[in-house]
Amino acid sequence: MKSRIKYPRSEKVYLPGTIYPELRVGMRKVEQVPSTTFAGEEKVITPNPDIYIYDTSGPFSDPDIEIDLKKGLPRLREPWILRRNDVEQLPEITSEYGRMRRDDKSLDHLRFEHISLPYRAKRGKCCTQMYYAKQGIITPEMEYVAIRENMNCAELGIETHITPEFVRREIAEGRALLPANINHPEAEPMIIGRNFLVKINTNIGNSATTSSIDEEVEKALWSCKWGGDTLMDLSTGENIHETREWIIRNCPVPVGTVPIYQALEKVNGRVEDLTWELYRDTLIEQCEQGVDYFTIHAGIRRHNVHLADKRLCGIVSRGGSIMSKWCLVHDRESFLYEHFDDICDILAQYDVAVSLGDGLRPGSTYDANDEAQFAELDTMGELVLRAWAKNVQAFIEGPGHVPMHKIKENMERQIEKCHNAPFYTLGPLVTDIAPGYDHITSAIGAAQIGWLGTAMLCYVTPKEHLALPDKEDVRTGVITYKIAAHAADLAKGHPGAQVRDNALSKARYEFRWKDQFDLSLDPERAQTYFRAGHHIDGEYCTMCGPNFCAMRLSRELGKKKE
Amino acid sequence: MKSRIKYPRSEKVYLPGTIYPELRVGMRKVEQVPSTTFAGEEKVITPNPDIYIYDTSGPFSDPDIEIDLKKGLPRLREPWILRRNDVEQLPEITSEYGRMRRDDKSLDHLRFEHISLPYRAKRGKCCTQMYYAKQGIITPEMEYVAIRENMNCAELGIETHITPEFVRREIAEGRALLPANINHPEAEPMIIGRNFLVKINTNIGNSATTSSIDEEVEKALWSCKWGGDTLMDLSTGENIHETREWIIRNCPVPVGTVPIYQALEKVNGRVEDLTWELYRDTLIEQCEQGVDYFTIHAGIRRHNVHLADKRLCGIVSRGGSIMSKWCLVHDRESFLYEHFDDICDILAQYDVAVSLGDGLRPGSTYDANDEAQFAELDTMGELVLRAWAKNVQAFIEGPGHVPMHKIKENMERQIEKCHNAPFYTLGPLVTDIAPGYDHITSAIGAAQIGWLGTAMLCYVTPKEHLALPDKEDVRTGVITYKIAAHAADLAKGHPGAQVRDNALSKARYEFRWKDQFDLSLDPERAQTYFRAGHHIDGEYCTMCGPNFCAMRLSRELGKKKE
Repeated sequence: MKSRIKYPRSEKVYLPGTIYPELRVGMRKVEQVPSTTFAGEEKVITPNPDIYIYDTSGPFSDPDIEIDLKKGLPRLREPWILRRNDVEQLPEITSEYGRMRRDDKSLDHLRFEHISLPYRAKRGKCCTQMYYAKQGIITPEMEYVAIRENMNCAELGIETHITPEFVRREIAEGRALLPANINHPEAEPMIIGRNFLVKINTNIGNSATTSSIDEEVEKALWSCKWGGDTLMDLSTGENIHETREWIIRNCPVPVGTVPIYQALEKVNGRVEDLTWELYRDTLIEQCEQGVDYFTIHAGIRRHNVHLADKRLCGIVSRGGSIMSKWCLVHDRESFLYEHFDDICDILAQYDVAVSLGDGLRPGSTYDANDEAQFAELDTMGELVLRAWAKNVQAFIEGPGHVPMHKIKENMERQIEKCHNAPFYTLGPLVTDIAPGYDHITSAIGAAQIGWLGTAMLCYVTPKEHLALPDKEDVRTGVITYKIAAHAADLAKGHPGAQVRDNALSKARYEFRWKDQFDLSLDPERAQTYFRAGHHIDGEYCTMCGPNFCAMRLSRELGKKKE
Repeated sequence: MKSRIKYPRSEKVYLPGTIYPELRVGMRKVEQVPSTTFAGEEKVITPNPDIYIYDTSGPFSDPDIEIDLKKGLPRLREPWILRRNDVEQLPEITSEYGRMRRDDKSLDHLRFEHISLPYRAKRGKCCTQMYYAKQGIITPEMEYVAIRENMNCAELGIETHITPEFVRREIAEGRALLPANINHPEAEPMIIGRNFLVKINTNIGNSATTSSIDEEVEKALWSCKWGGDTLMDLSTGENIHETREWIIRNCPVPVGTVPIYQALEKVNGRVEDLTWELYRDTLIEQCEQGVDYFTIHAGIRRHNVHLADKRLCGIVSRGGSIMSKWCLVHDRESFLYEHFDDICDILAQYDVAVSLGDGLRPGSTYDANDEAQFAELDTMGELVLRAWAKNVQAFIEGPGHVPMHKIKENMERQIEKCHNAPFYTLGPLVTDIAPGYDHITSAIGAAQIGWLGTAMLCYVTPKEHLALPDKEDVRTGVITYKIAAHAADLAKGHPGAQVRDNALSKARYEFRWKDQFDLSLDPERAQTYFRAGHHIDGEYCTMCGPNFCAMRLSRELGKKKE
């Protein structure tokens, strides 16, 4: 498997910190070709500035770092974590299941070889970014994201409100989170909150019927290459434990999971056999592997399950349907809800964030904004306060399928009921009639809800509703969501967001084709399409031919007047 | 070339009129599989209603109509036109250029064989739909579109405000237009206005460097198959006159052009040689061939050209740059502006609509909503009144590249300055950084501006900015824009728009895969993706495997409670 990520004509550069001068915040720098203009007949060559691009590819795009997927990535954050002196390395892993897998010789050939023993907060200590933020401490992670969010600002003199102190305050008040499990020190810090760049999540994972560990690791790298900000491993097939280890050790972005999936696999798919003890062991297993956030469907309550009866599409969340069935079979309150404080106590020991899963999200536009959905949102609002009380970072998952005129209510209600906790939505899909194109139906909704304040968008691929995505689908899904997120950043006026658009537009107008490609979200595709078009000359192209090139004519007018 | 359009499990049906019982309004009917539910252990079979789908494929999808592309489509509207007794058939074509082409023996092998002599309004008569509407006359065309817009309403008892009288009033007041050149009687009536279904336009056309007549006709059919509501032939290459004839004779949807393109070809690309006389002859040539609407960049004024100087991307409209150059070279007012009343006099004789081209539309998000753009919009507002005064149907073209937060101002200003004339926008693209994916960057903007009131969306393909689209790009562009348009219809609450979504969602929930495919915008692609996913069983699929199918679990909960 290739373990290098390359971008055309880009250089991996690192920016230092001020509070923490040793920080090295990775970015991708694109050096532009100079512009040629005319003063009368004379050619004037003007340089164009370097453009910095937010970079999710981590060490994979640094030619100076040697990478061996079998050893995993450098443990960037480990010294920062240890310096805080509030965690201890355990003598062995805590989870019973984890130990069982470890001791199973038949799995040796699948196993990641260089597993470190896990860290956990010392007794009486708290090691979450939220805890530090509340204490007024700016961590290296916080300064890192402040630098990362401000790309191009210092260089081009753009004013920005995003300082390390601003980052700290947003985290302290729960408006943002910085997912950073102490057992995933390989991940580069990033932040999720509505006053920052809109982020996107990519889902990968095997199912009972498909895919190998290699394929999943390859998809993870692929997602990071194209710009995925976090990665959810939604595996429901075989060897979930081992697959996850490989992914986490090689993933430069935060990793999320839905622990109930693995718990259900452990009871061979028998929902009724799920127990709190089993789930608890699964949480600990995953906390100690380094998962950065868990989707937990604790918002499903026994008395709300029936609200989905009136729907066209019932319950379409896997976690939601599992927990609803559990509640009905046992005729009692969900153990996730009942044990939510216990869950938070565990998560706080590793700084794992909780993403409150929307088990009752609408699965069709008809079901959008209904009683079931909003009843769950109210419960989430209660739970998020309980998470914060334990210094656990938290965010809220959202729909799903919502027609455009009902999107705004989703956002406003979420902000109100969930006390400004970040929103993390799937799409929403704005119509149900385009299977095969649901990356597009959902990007339309995603761009809008991102603009309105959603902090992270969960990508959707063209195969949604039809099949598991392959690599090309992952690429298309990620780029589509980068578009939605970036469109939202522009509309929100994120500092520096417009820089890349302006540079690309100027390159387009000046027929600097290479810059146009290299500044784009997918330089490879842009070039392929361009080449397929039998391009003729640097100053026009096959679309219009020489006489009909508006930009050429327009530039000639410029020359004429000078 | 194939001259048949097929949709899976669909039947071509025709609905009759009430005022005009002889009308046969074509629709596509999808017969659904019945649902299977359970009452206790007993299976209950419930039928699902037929779903009607708006159909732009014309006679091509009717197996009972024999089609010979060399003869063209049946002349559906000819009897209605003749019955009004206000047009006459000319003894020969009026345009000098048209006659020259006709008499050129070297073109015989390219020529469409069965050209009819053109119709024109009798002296002192007016034959435009706007004229009739103002007289209080409901034409067969108006009743036709009323029926067409109300698909599924009568069958499912959905209330609708769209009556033939409503259509008439919207046209009379200029809020909608019904493009219907008397020389394109093959086209099925359709309506463009913000109180109707949002429409989409597809651009095809050769350029100096590519494509044959056959290819262009094939693309035209292809566009109609996937749902293009109108078709613009933007050819700028060879044999534009002959290519257009073939397209119009075989096109069941209205055809638009930008006559300045052909005029420029006639003077070998020398902008300075363009004259009113040449342009006038081109208009007449195209009116008599049957073009239904012309994009005319009459909004460019001599004194506004310099407003584009401040821009990042200058002028990106081909027509705009041509006319700007003409104004500067001759240092005088544009002949399109000066002769606008003369132009309208010509158009009225054939019922050709005018689409006021936005020559100063922004070509980058940076340039959006600037002085140049809005100065032109003001001129368009003046011109639309002049068109209406001559009973010429009119609409207004709009941008372009606009970030999301500036879209609303575009729509509101257009409504205000252009007196409620329909808006027809290209995208807008909400970011500039995704060449290769501009169907998506623009669909995000298109869905929003459609919801806000834009009546027709001009499609953008993945090759925008990079190359001319091939057939697959046309398909992707059309489907992407059908998504944007339909999302807008849902958000606007168009009567019956939600029917198809609900039917598809219900089919999805009940694992009626065939219905899910056949009700979708692109059944072929949905099936291909599904099959590639190694689907196993009717009641779950590879995405989740048997244990993780939320819909299956959710349905089981339903059974459990009964």
